[in-house]
Amino acid sequence: MGNITFDYSKSLIEDHEIKSLMPFVRTAHDMLHKGYGLGNQFIGWIHYPKNIEKVDLEGIKSATKAIQESSDALIVIGIGGSYLGARACVEALNHSFYNQLPKKKRKGAEIYFVGNNMSSSYILDLIDILEDKDISINVISKSGTTLEPAIAFRIFKDYMEAKYGKEGAKNRIYVTTDKHKGILRKLCEEEGYTSFVIPDDIGGRYSVFTPVGLLPIAVSGLDIDGFIAGAIDGIDEYSKDVEDNISYKYALTRNILYRKGKDIEILVTYEPCLKYLTEWWKQLFGESEGKDNKGIYPSSVEFTTDLHSLGQLIQDGKRNIFETTINIEKPKRDLKLKKISHYRDGLEFIEGKTLDFVNKKAFEGTVKAHTKGQVPNLIINLPELNEYYFGNLMYFFEKACAISGYLLGVNPFDQPGVEEYKNHMYELLGKSKKDNL
Amino acid sequence: MGNITFDYSKSLIEDHEIKSLMPFVRTAHDMLHKGYGLGNQFIGWIHYPKNIEKVDLEGIKSATKAIQESSDALIVIGIGGSYLGARACVEALNHSFYNQLPKKKRKGAEIYFVGNNMSSSYILDLIDILEDKDISINVISKSGTTLEPAIAFRIFKDYMEAKYGKEGAKNRIYVTTDKHKGILRKLCEEEGYTSFVIPDDIGGRYSVFTPVGLLPIAVSGLDIDGFIAGAIDGIDEYSKDVEDNISYKYALTRNILYRKGKDIEILVTYEPCLKYLTEWWKQLFGESEGKDNKGIYPSSVEFTTDLHSLGQLIQDGKRNIFETTINIEKPKRDLKLKKISHYRDGLEFIEGKTLDFVNKKAFEGTVKAHTKGQVPNLIINLPELNEYYFGNLMYFFEKACAISGYLLGVNPFDQPGVEEYKNHMYELLGKSKKDNL
Repeated sequence: MGNITFDYSKSLIEDHEIKSLMPFVRTAHDMLHKGYGLGNQFIGWIHYPKNIEKVDLEGIKSATKAIQESSDALIVIGIGGSYLGARACVEALNHSFYNQLPKKKRKGAEIYFVGNNMSSSYILDLIDILEDKDISINVISKSGTTLEPAIAFRIFKDYMEAKYGKEGAKNRIYVTTDKHKGILRKLCEEEGYTSFVIPDDIGGRYSVFTPVGLLPIAVSGLDIDGFIAGAIDGIDEYSKDVEDNISYKYALTRNILYRKGKDIEILVTYEPCLKYLTEWWKQLFGESEGKDNKGIYPSSVEFTTDLHSLGQLIQDGKRNIFETTINIEKPKRDLKLKKISHYRDGLEFIEGKTLDFVNKKAFEGTVKAHTKGQVPNLIINLPELNEYYFGNLMYFFEKACAISGYLLGVNPFDQPGVEEYKNHMYELLGKSKKDNL
Repeated sequence: MGNITFDYSKSLIEDHEIKSLMPFVRTAHDMLHKGYGLGNQFIGWIHYPKNIEKVDLEGIKSATKAIQESSDALIVIGIGGSYLGARACVEALNHSFYNQLPKKKRKGAEIYFVGNNMSSSYILDLIDILEDKDISINVISKSGTTLEPAIAFRIFKDYMEAKYGKEGAKNRIYVTTDKHKGILRKLCEEEGYTSFVIPDDIGGRYSVFTPVGLLPIAVSGLDIDGFIAGAIDGIDEYSKDVEDNISYKYALTRNILYRKGKDIEILVTYEPCLKYLTEWWKQLFGESEGKDNKGIYPSSVEFTTDLHSLGQLIQDGKRNIFETTINIEKPKRDLKLKKISHYRDGLEFIEGKTLDFVNKKAFEGTVKAHTKGQVPNLIINLPELNEYYFGNLMYFFEKACAISGYLLGVNPFDQPGVEEYKNHMYELLGKSKKDNL
């Protein structure tokens, strides 16, 4: 198997621009690896995949087995970093309509996500379609008090106890939370729920390789060993010197483009199943870098569909954009475009080719057109969509994000701005100090 | 019933800034309504909702009835403006999991969209889940030669003829295309498909009130009369003088913010079902304004979920952003948060309140926090999510977009940049001149 590769030959960046900043990447590497950068209490993710305890992994696997045997669906309650990583992986690597596949055609349980918004319609609609299904729940929250998942858990705990009785519900509720503190930990002790630990030194957006991501991913039927193996290989691969390190080169090139006035990065995919990978990436980079009045605005498009939407603007609009494309070299499935003889539709020139071949030509044509329009293009080539490469890719991005944040001069591991809306919201809701646990 | 309202009191814009540009809005109005602006051959959408022929509407309704009777699902083949408007409406106004609802609980047919990408995995996965369903097809393409829908139609025509025979397929294929020209029109004549007309003077992104949008919307079980009525009321409402015209005020305020360096607009929703409304809006504004090296970058977020993702950056990142929130005053469904006594989760302060009440406080708290962070906020209040208001809102945006484009000094009705990638792609695919129809 090949490796993930990174192509910045279409970045409109000159070699000397790269060379002149390489020493700073080495400094950023040292800050991260020697632990003298800002936020150094949250760098546990760097080596975590290598250090997962065998016993923890077996716990996840036995919970997975129990859930798959007892339940048609797993309801995953979490928001932000306790949500997006798992969803990215579940959607990228399973069938495009995995929740609608008949039971005999699926590898794991159906997966539904809730507690990531406060839409009353969404939650009631979800409950509608669960009517005839047996379900389990995985609630994921470090503090236990984040409002969205806390509300959803309240509703679903009640729902489960009404449906299965208190004892029955107990065996269907799985909690991923802090090792010692918080309401969910306390509840696990009181009620006897099976629980998993979110490490103290790993922030939400870097937590996909912890039980936060692993349990839902495994329950959907995916191979978490392969996923972790991809990350473990990433630890070495993406710690090399910048000359040989594509993760650092991605961090560097996007930093150069930002310095040149490109303050919007569009992550481009050609497969709809990568939608939530782009959402996960947006949190990772946006929350890590968007501070102190700085930061690239991370956005995403799905081509070719959005070539018929934002394509015009990317080609011809304000020149403050660069693109990073994730190119999947070998598609999950492919089909050949048959010859038809009984009518002419003008498509004779692609007869005998596969649909993915045409998709690739659209990709190549787009890169040509957009670079001609002065939009720098970075390209990440993934050999194929499987657990190993997906794990490797997510680790690639995490490492690039940390280095990128240090190059930008921010703390890539905090998110002080997130409290601001919460404070105003709690005030409007009349929450008083005594309501804190 | 109330009306849609527009609140720019949190826009950080002074009154004199509005006043000083009002005369230019009046000029833009004249350019549009007297037809002397650029792109004036594509302004048929302004009065179209009022002028839909009764016979056309009956044709759509009888096709709807036939599809609903014969089919479990409708497969909608289209891309860009032949796709996003219908999907926006279908998803916003139906159940959150409408394709998964049991037949007896649904108002219309299941709706699947295809031909909006070239993912081989997606199309094969879709075919998997159609196995036990009876289906009909609506292919939507003005030229008939746009590659993505043309390929999907090729595949599905073949699929239908294999499944139902040529005669059976004939009664299940519905074509929305040009009145006289193109391969699809020719095919309708040869094969006898039921067909609908895309008017010559309406571009794709302004076509949701034509059969392009109406047929899929109706088949999903929604009331297209109400939808059109909303647009018709919009024609008068959003043609008034700018002093009394919230559509023009939206166009004006966003233009002012762009002149002040805010070159990213984030469309904010608090209901996941509005996802495709934001996608439709992104095409509408991005394709209309993103040209001549100008244009606001249209992006979207879904709160509260993305407050735990892009929230940090919006609060504290580079100050080149403004937000426009669509606030749904009355939710489709709501639930009361019950009192629980057997354990404490710190949520006692919201007991007895409804979930939507909490969602609204999150919205209010967010506007406070973000404006405090110097992010201008525009707010569009929709009394509720139904066909009438949704039609009115889409027309509100169309009108605002046209005026906004003229204020910016571009042609809001062309998309010359979209050809660029196509030319390169066709060259790479070895398409020659003789392959043109």
